[in-house]
This record gives sequence, structure tokens and C-alpha cells, in this order.
Amino acid sequence: MFSVLLYKLEIIKGGLALNYNGKRVPPVVIRRLPRYYRYLGELIRNGVMRISSNALSERMDVTASQIRQDFNYFGGFGQQGYGYNVEHLYMEIGDILGLHDGYRTAIVGAGNLGRALANHDTFEKRGFKLRAIFDNSPDVVGTTIHGIEVMHIDVMDDFLAENPIDIGILAVPRSAVSETADRLVAGGVKGLLNFSYAELKMEKDVAIENVHLSDSLMTLSYKIKQGE
Amino acid sequence: MFSVLLYKLEIIKGGLALNYNGKRVPPVVIRRLPRYYRYLGELIRNGVMRISSNALSERMDVTASQIRQDFNYFGGFGQQGYGYNVEHLYMEIGDILGLHDGYRTAIVGAGNLGRALANHDTFEKRGFKLRAIFDNSPDVVGTTIHGIEVMHIDVMDDFLAENPIDIGILAVPRSAVSETADRLVAGGVKGLLNFSYAELKMEKDVAIENVHLSDSLMTLSYKIKQGE
Repeated sequence: MFSVLLYKLEIIKGGLALNYNGKRVPPVVIRRLPRYYRYLGELIRNGVMRISSNALSERMDVTASQIRQDFNYFGGFGQQGYGYNVEHLYMEIGDILGLHDGYRTAIVGAGNLGRALANHDTFEKRGFKLRAIFDNSPDVVGTTIHGIEVMHIDVMDDFLAENPIDIGILAVPRSAVSETADRLVAGGVKGLLNFSYAELKMEKDVAIENVHLSDSLMTLSYKIKQGE
Repeated sequence: MFSVLLYKLEIIKGGLALNYNGKRVPPVVIRRLPRYYRYLGELIRNGVMRISSNALSERMDVTASQIRQDFNYFGGFGQQGYGYNVEHLYMEIGDILGLHDGYRTAIVGAGNLGRALANHDTFEKRGFKLRAIFDNSPDVVGTTIHGIEVMHIDVMDDFLAENPIDIGILAVPRSAVSETADRLVAGGVKGLLNFSYAELKMEKDVAIENVHLSDSLMTLSYKIKQGE
């Protein structure tokens, strides 16, 4: 089943399900899709209806030819010369990202991070539906976060059997990651968003995204150091 | 001063200070440095002393030639054939990332996310030193988080004048981002790590890293959608 690679050599390759229509899409391109989606959302709110790859390029840290290359993995989207239809592109990218599928989520761990994630309204705005929150602490179980009553982790298996969940969000201590992931997968989740430092390695058909909050601080640190 | 680009067209380009020794380094390469650093740390804990770019490649989602290209931006690091000296590489990358400079941080906003970040021990392990936490709520001011007494935001300017801080971590509501960023910069911080949905745009020599927690959820969603 799942293993946590904290002190082991093997490290997740994260290669699962990166293909699009049978073509392999580089992970870096996939990771740009959410950014495109966010920026296109801004354009729509500003009433912009068409945008060229050049204009889009000026707004992002990507060259215009890179944008065209990125989009080509997904069929291209736009007419050259005319630029892209912003709303169409927004819908298409949202669709590719699965944002119109209404994935149901459950958060495990109702500590500070779990609570912050439960209250993070962008998740909902992107179409994800928070259905349950689990914790093992009697201080937290029974309290309400973002309108949802926190359940004891002991009832999670039964809950999942009756209430299908697509995405498990792990905000548990490292020591609990492996077991929690196993139980979520046994309960039928299709993907895990893991916020513990431990890297989850997948051994079956489950999508995984490990989030390292300290990576962004290190990137900022680089900018400070090299900008001095 | 700072402006928050929530409903505006201009969006941060984030191009500041990406150079290394005068050479421009693509942002995607810089964003891989924290990952290399983490993986090398794992190798060291496992007693691995040398590693080839091929072996490193197997552990990451990057080809061996990409790894060599990435490292070439920073002088190369290793002898070909012999592979890289893991500890040397770890120290070099840590140095490039500024992790040995002991940057001092302050968190603004002691809600769930701010508290989670204050308690995130990886920050400390990477050499960052949390020096202060600010909030405006009387419920929180005076309480202790991770051994630090939360101060009122009203005393922040005075505090910064006497206690230099390198990095301001923004965990405030969107509406407060712009003013908070201005005050932190006026107080001398060199970089801002921004967790609010708003994108900060810089108008002076300050490094910025905007973190979007929902991007990782969207990437996971893609993997689920395309893997089905």
C-alpha cells in the first residue's frame, strides 16, 4: 500500500495520469494550467474578450511561443492572428483541469492547516465541494468548521463507504500520513493532496500531489539572495 | 507603492532577481532548486555520498539532461562520470538559495493559516528564523504561538524600525494585503511571501512570491480527470 518516503531513497516520480489524449504532457506545462486559468478568470472579470499569446505573455512569466507550445498539447485553442477567445479558453482549460466535474473533497486533520484549508474559499470557487472533515482529537470532533461538523477519524471508513469522496486532503502529522492515505484509498478516493512534509509514493492508480509550503519560501529566499 | 491586482489587468511578472551571476535563469529552473535541495537532504540522511544525474533523474520528474542543464546555470557543480558529491551539491544549492544567510521572518495574520505557518517546523529547519507575529484581533494579540507572543499590528512599524526583518509572510485577508505589504516594505523587508489570493505587484526592489494553494488542488484535479 502507501509508504511515506521520509527517510527512504525512492522518491515519488509523480508521472501518473500526466497524459492528455494519449500524448505525454510535461509536468511543468500541467503546472502552468492553473495559472493560465487564474489569469483568464481575471481577464473575464475585466471584460476582456480576446487576447493574443503576446499579450498573455506580458502578463505571465512565460514567452508567447511557450504559451502557444503549451496550448498545442491540448489542441491549440485559438486562431492565430485573431488571438484567443478568453471565455472559451477559460472554459476549455477549466474542463481539462476537471474543474467542471464537481469533485468532492474531505479534509483529514482539523488543526490550524486543516482549518485554514476548510475556510479557503478559492477551493469552492474552483468547483471543489468540501463534504467532510475528520480528526482524532476530542477537542475538535463535534465542532463546526466552515459549516461542517468535524467527525472522528474512526468513522471515516464507514462514511466513505456511504458517501463517495474524490479527493482526500491530508493535513495530518507526518506519522499519520501513511495510514490515513491507505484508508482514504481503500475508501475509494481518486486523488490525495498531501500537505505533510512526507512525500507520498503511490503504488496504485491514485493521483497524488505533494505540497511543500517551504519551497515557496526557499524560492523567495533565492530572489532576495541573488537580488542583493 | 504596492497594489493588489485582484481585479486589474496588469499581473506581476515576477522577474526580479532571477539572475544568477548576471545570467538570466528561467523561473522554472529556480523553482526546481528547492526540490533538488529537499531530495539531496534525503540522500544525505540515507548516507548516499555520490549520485549521477541519471540516478537523480530517476528520483525526480526531470530528465538527466535537464538536471545537467539546470546545474549549468550555476556553474555545473559536478564531475561528469564521477557523478555529484551529494553533500557538496546540497551545500552549494543551499547557498544559492540563501538558506545559510539566516533570514529573519515575521508573519502578519495569526488566523488559522498564520498559526499553521508559525508552527511549520520546516521553515526553521531551512534556516529561517521567525522573529515576530502580528495581528489586529484582541482575541489573538498577547497569546503565544510557537513561543512567540503575538503583537498588535499597530506596533509593527516601530518593531521593524528596531528589529530588522528580511521576509514578511502575509497571511492576512485580501483587503489588508496592499497596506500590509506597504508597511512591511517601508519597514525594510527584502521579500514578501504572500498567501492571500491577491497577487502582489512590486514597484520597487522587493522580492515577491505569491502562493496559490488552490493551484495544487487544480493540478491534482487534472491528474484525476485525465487519468480516468
